[in-house]
Amino acid sequence: MLTFYYAPGTCALASHLALEFAGAPYEAKRLDFKQNQQRSPEYLRVNPKGRVPALVTERGVLTETPVLLQYIAQAFPQAKLAPVNDAFLLAKGNEFNSYLCSTVHVNHAHKGRGYRWVEADDSASLEAMKKKVPQTMAESFALIEEQMLKGPWVLGESFSTSDLYLYTLTRWLEGDGVDVKRFPKVADHMRRMEALPQVQKVVALHQ
Amino acid sequence: MLTFYYAPGTCALASHLALEFAGAPYEAKRLDFKQNQQRSPEYLRVNPKGRVPALVTERGVLTETPVLLQYIAQAFPQAKLAPVNDAFLLAKGNEFNSYLCSTVHVNHAHKGRGYRWVEADDSASLEAMKKKVPQTMAESFALIEEQMLKGPWVLGESFSTSDLYLYTLTRWLEGDGVDVKRFPKVADHMRRMEALPQVQKVVALHQ
Ligand SMILES: N[C@@H](CCC(=O)N[C@@H](CS)C(=O)NCC(=O)O)C(=O)O
Ligand SMILES: N[C@@H](CCC(=O)N[C@@H](CS)C(=O)NCC(=O)O)C(=O)O
Repeated sequence: MLTFYYAPGTCALASHLALEFAGAPYEAKRLDFKQNQQRSPEYLRVNPKGRVPALVTERGVLTETPVLLQYIAQAFPQAKLAPVNDAFLLAKGNEFNSYLCSTVHVNHAHKGRGYRWVEADDSASLEAMKKKVPQTMAESFALIEEQMLKGPWVLGESFSTSDLYLYTLTRWLEGDGVDVKRFPKVADHMRRMEALPQVQKVVALHQ
Repeated sequence: MLTFYYAPGTCALASHLALEFAGAPYEAKRLDFKQNQQRSPEYLRVNPKGRVPALVTERGVLTETPVLLQYIAQAFPQAKLAPVNDAFLLAKGNEFNSYLCSTVHVNHAHKGRGYRWVEADDSASLEAMKKKVPQTMAESFALIEEQMLKGPWVLGESFSTSDLYLYTLTRWLEGDGVDVKRFPKVADHMRRMEALPQVQKVVALHQ
C-alpha cells in the first residue's frame, strides 16, 4: 500500500492521476496549505523540502513530480504509462516532464511564491514577478503547442505520464492570465483529458 | 556517434562528465554564450529552448540535464552510472537530480538570468533577486548536506550521475557568495571529485 501526499491546486495532481491510471493501491492524504501543514514537523519528516507531492513506498519516500511519474510507470508496467522498455522514448517523455518541472512550473511559481527568490516584504519585486507570469507562461505554452505536443497525445499515438502532467499545468493557465484558446492543440488536449473518468474522479478530490 | 552541445560554466558540465565516465563515443561542440550562439537559428533547430545541454543521438535530440544523465546511464550500463535495474533506487538518484534541476539550479539562475522572470530593465527587482542568491543557495546546500548526501557518494557506496551533477552545482557556490566550507560533506565530496582524472579532463574543456 502506497501513501500519497497532495494538496489541491498543486502539481501533485499529475502524480495523483498517475496512481489512478496505474490502478495502484494507494491512500491519498490531503494537506491544507492554508494551515501550512506542508511545514508541520510531522510532514517535514516525510519530505524535508516541505512540498507536495510525496509518495511513501515500502522502501522509502519519493518526491519530485517527474520522478514519481516514471516510478509509477515502472512499478505498474501493465498500465503502459511510459515507454519503459525503450531508453530513448522514455527519455523523450522525461524531457517533456523535466521542462514542465524546471521551467513551466517555476514560471508559474513566480506569481504566488515569489518570496522564495526575493525578500518577503519587497512588494515591488513581488509585484514585478507576478506581472510577468502571463508572458512567461504564454511563451512556454507556445513552445509546447508548436514544438512539443505531437498529438493526439504529447508523445504521439501513445498516452503517457506527460499527458497527465501537461493537463495539470494547463489547468493553471486561466489563473495565470493566459487564455488556453491561444493554443488550439493544448486546448483540445485539455478537453479530451477532462472527458476521461479517472481524471474526473481525481480532479473532484482536488476541489 | 553522439554530438554534445555545451557552454563553459553551465550545468552542461554534468552531462559532459557522464559521457566521459560512460566511455561514450561523442563529439563535444562548444557554444559561445557571449556571442549568444545558443540563440542562433542553427542551434535553435537543435534545441528550440535555446539552452544547453543538448545531446544529438541517432534517434533524435535530447535535452534537460536529469534526462541526459539517466539516458547516458541506461545506454552505457557497463559504466554503472545509475542503478538502472532497480526502479526505486533509480528514482532515489533521479529525485536528487530533479531537486538540483528544479530548485538549486533555479535559485542560482536568479543571479544572472533574473530577466527571465521580471522585465529586463527593472534593475531594482533584478538586484533584489541577486541579493537573495547566497541565502537560497546556502539553504539548498544545507538540505543537501544534512538530508541528502549519504556519503561517501550521494547515494551511499555507489558512485552515480548524482555525484556528477552535485559537483557541477557545487562549483557555482563561490560565485554565488557561499563558502563551501560551511558544508563539510559537500566540500569533501568536491575534493574527491576533483581528484578523478575524468573530471580533470572535462573541467579543462570548460575553462
Ligand atoms: N520540483 C517539485 C516542486 C514541488 C512543489 O513546489 N510543490 C508545491 C505545490 S505545486 C508546494 O508544495 N508548495 C508548498 C510551499 O511552497 O510551501 C516537483 O515537481 O514535485
Ligand atoms: N532545465 C534545463 C536548464 C538548462 C539551462 O538553463 N541551461 C543554461 C546554462 S546553465 C542555458 O543554456 N542558458 C542559456 C540562456 O539562458 O540563454 C537543464 O537542466 O538542462
